Amino acid sequence: MNAAYARLRDKAARIAALGEAASVLHWDASAMMPLGGGAARGEQLAALSGVIHGLSTAPDYADDLHAATAEGGWEQANLALLRREHLRANALPTALVEASSRANSACEKVWRDAKRASDFAMVRPFLAEVLRLQRETAQALSAATGLAPYDALMEGYQRGVTAAEVEPIFAAYEAWLRDALPRAEELQARRGAPLPLPGPFPADRQRALCRELSLRLGLEETHSRLDESLHPFCGGTPSDVRITTFYSERHVEKALLGVLHETGHALYERGLPPGFARQPVGAAAGMAAHESQSLIVEMQACRSDGFLAFLGPKLHATFGGDPEPYRPGNLARLWRRVERGFVRVDADELTYPAHVIQRFRLERAMIAGDLRVDDLPGAWAEGLRALLGIAPPDDARGCLQDIHWHDGAFGYFPSYTLGAMAAAQLMKAARAAAGAELEAGLARGDLAPLLGWLRANVHAHGARLGFQELLRAATGKALDPSDFVEHLTRRYLDAA
Amino acid sequence: MNAAYARLRDKAARIAALGEAASVLHWDASAMMPLGGGAARGEQLAALSGVIHGLSTAPDYADDLHAATAEGGWEQANLALLRREHLRANALPTALVEASSRANSACEKVWRDAKRASDFAMVRPFLAEVLRLQRETAQALSAATGLAPYDALMEGYQRGVTAAEVEPIFAAYEAWLRDALPRAEELQARRGAPLPLPGPFPADRQRALCRELSLRLGLEETHSRLDESLHPFCGGTPSDVRITTFYSERHVEKALLGVLHETGHALYERGLPPGFARQPVGAAAGMAAHESQSLIVEMQACRSDGFLAFLGPKLHATFGGDPEPYRPGNLARLWRRVERGFVRVDADELTYPAHVIQRFRLERAMIAGDLRVDDLPGAWAEGLRALLGIAPPDDARGCLQDIHWHDGAFGYFPSYTLGAMAAAQLMKAARAAAGAELEAGLARGDLAPLLGWLRANVHAHGARLGFQELLRAATGKALDPSDFVEHLTRRYLDAA
Repeated sequence: MNAAYARLRDKAARIAALGEAASVLHWDASAMMPLGGGAARGEQLAALSGVIHGLSTAPDYADDLHAATAEGGWEQANLALLRREHLRANALPTALVEASSRANSACEKVWRDAKRASDFAMVRPFLAEVLRLQRETAQALSAATGLAPYDALMEGYQRGVTAAEVEPIFAAYEAWLRDALPRAEELQARRGAPLPLPGPFPADRQRALCRELSLRLGLEETHSRLDESLHPFCGGTPSDVRITTFYSERHVEKALLGVLHETGHALYERGLPPGFARQPVGAAAGMAAHESQSLIVEMQACRSDGFLAFLGPKLHATFGGDPEPYRPGNLARLWRRVERGFVRVDADELTYPAHVIQRFRLERAMIAGDLRVDDLPGAWAEGLRALLGIAPPDDARGCLQDIHWHDGAFGYFPSYTLGAMAAAQLMKAARAAAGAELEAGLARGDLAPLLGWLRANVHAHGARLGFQELLRAATGKALDPSDFVEHLTRRYLDAA
Repeated sequence: MNAAYARLRDKAARIAALGEAASVLHWDASAMMPLGGGAARGEQLAALSGVIHGLSTAPDYADDLHAATAEGGWEQANLALLRREHLRANALPTALVEASSRANSACEKVWRDAKRASDFAMVRPFLAEVLRLQRETAQALSAATGLAPYDALMEGYQRGVTAAEVEPIFAAYEAWLRDALPRAEELQARRGAPLPLPGPFPADRQRALCRELSLRLGLEETHSRLDESLHPFCGGTPSDVRITTFYSERHVEKALLGVLHETGHALYERGLPPGFARQPVGAAAGMAAHESQSLIVEMQACRSDGFLAFLGPKLHATFGGDPEPYRPGNLARLWRRVERGFVRVDADELTYPAHVIQRFRLERAMIAGDLRVDDLPGAWAEGLRALLGIAPPDDARGCLQDIHWHDGAFGYFPSYTLGAMAAAQLMKAARAAAGAELEAGLARGDLAPLLGWLRANVHAHGARLGFQELLRAATGKALDPSDFVEHLTRRYLDAA
């Protein structure tokens, strides 16, 4: 490590500290801020991003970046990440960044109304402009990084995996699902409908239960909070994670399963290497990696038979009433219900990837120039019909349902399913390593054996490894969807 | 207004937005943050103040400040304030600022232990170093501004009033108190002890009541919050004020009167001119002005006979039990109790100024070099004996009780009593203007008539006027303690 690297590290830490400040202010805006504070909050966040941009594009920063040398795997990886970030930031002309930011804001705003009115035509010209600028961005990033344009966008969300790797994995899943979905539906029909949970579920009891569970799963009281916001998320900083949820007095599973999911995200942040706090190498490895950690907790661990056997009595003790609906078998039928639906966020574990595969293909075609915004609703219907055999009844439940594209986020969608697949692969590896102890833990609501393995094999790596490298290090192989398919087969196709 | 001024205004707004971000993070640290977030929060706040310092000492900022011209009273006042801030900031060598910051932190830390151990000797060398650097700071500010050294420190907290103006006012109060205090005590003794409020007071009911009252007094739901912290304060930003309190289930008056006090601060922030948000001229006029607004609400309005007649039944309806202790007359005897005590923050309205007068004299002597830190405990005992006829039994209840000096805050103390006196003067002027309507409002728990007058005559001025100018504009005269004495005479010496 030379003096330039030491300076660079301090500057990066300062920039990251300002980013943390912005993160807390974002959390506050969603969970605490009275409405009237919105305009001032906008000024505060704009000032912060201006300052962050100024510091990371300053000539002295570039000089240090150029002169820096680092020794050791971690420091070298950190320097490489700092250079990569700088390369990507400087690949984009300021005019393009600003035009994109304006176009995204304008489109996102119109999208809210268009979705409400279920009228794609309203947002079409705005989305076309967003796409035009995203294509320009992809080209510029591609020229700077040598990645294909779509891969260059995807790298902004998840480093270390390309569309060429994703494509065959998704195609294989599609093929498998074509056969598996009808079988799962048939099996489900044969088993009969589950008993609904009775409710109502008082918000204060839900709140206490959700907090208790998130602590039981491994979050520390002194390093986390659980609050409420319209759209649940995990924010804050690694030493102070803030998860939010939304309580519906009629549907306990919304907050409950949501908090388990966000707890997975939060545990990842908590497990990041503290010695590299506020350095890129000390951050999470990307959005697919992050999603793998939320899903391994929510889907793999907490919807397992073992955990449901712990959770059922706990729920009944909390809310009382008829014990029958809280039997683990009934909870399993309730919370592992398969259904061909139009809406991604409501989808089950089996059909969720179909929604993602469709979006991956559509956005890739749009970035390649092979699909025009005008043709999106038609392509949407066609894609969904091919994947799930259904077509959306309107735009609101079709190509208007997600905020992502309308806010300029192209290249994000694959992360969801890469995360789901990685979760299954990691769970299998964790089971192989921790075995009976892991299962026994789940059955008493104790995630410690799983968490211990994740901390050592995923969290502790920070962003030192890209997505595929991380999987290779943790499981001995790159992303292998057969582990996910095996998991789904056991859970949805096992007639026993 | 020229181009340089327009640029300057934008830069000042950006700097102020970063200051607002820091303010929200400070609130969060006290009211929300889990303990484990402390170290990272320190990094975040340090990065923010570094950035703020960098922006406000940048050459381009100084160039704009030099070239700027402004027209109109408000813009001219704003420019003058920007220049004054810059002059003060640049009067201090960076080495002095840093040495002061380090010495203050070190001393404050030791002070916590010293206070717990009630051992002044522990903190003495640290306080001596703080004082040495404060004297250097005062000299440097004096050289730059032309103010006397102590006045230059005081200006950092309250612009537009000098020690030479304060001294005779305080001396007159001391003389009046010598005679008034025994008379008030005698009268109080004759009236007999009040009934204690029974309690316990469940925290959730206190919370709801305090919030209801703060809204009734004029805070808007969409622009304010009420939360909990160890030390109550008013923070946030003018469009998003955050007040905090601390609930004791045994003593309802702690949170209740505290929230009324903080509501006064918050109403001031809410009434600042929005057209000059994030400009110095749009901020509050200083700490004495701020204290006048908290005290006019807490002491003048809410401890008035009229308001207590509204509040008593409300409290009884909230907490139930025997109605007798909630009679307005009993509340008045409880909450307007006079007592010679050692501790400023526990002091009543009548003796509070004595504590402030003592500190004003001691800190002025220390800055002048006439009192050494070694001699402080003796001077403290002597001063308190002269003012209240008592001497502290130990250092914890003597010169160790306040954080101020141990954190480098010299010149702040007068603000408390200047604020109390200004509150009485403003209340008298408001009564003269709004008269019967104001009194009738208080009796039904409605502050609107008073608030309307304060908004027009105090809040709307922002920081356009210094302390004495503000009083002159609002009441037709500079600070006149006779209004305060008149108020105290009516409240504590009226035998009727």
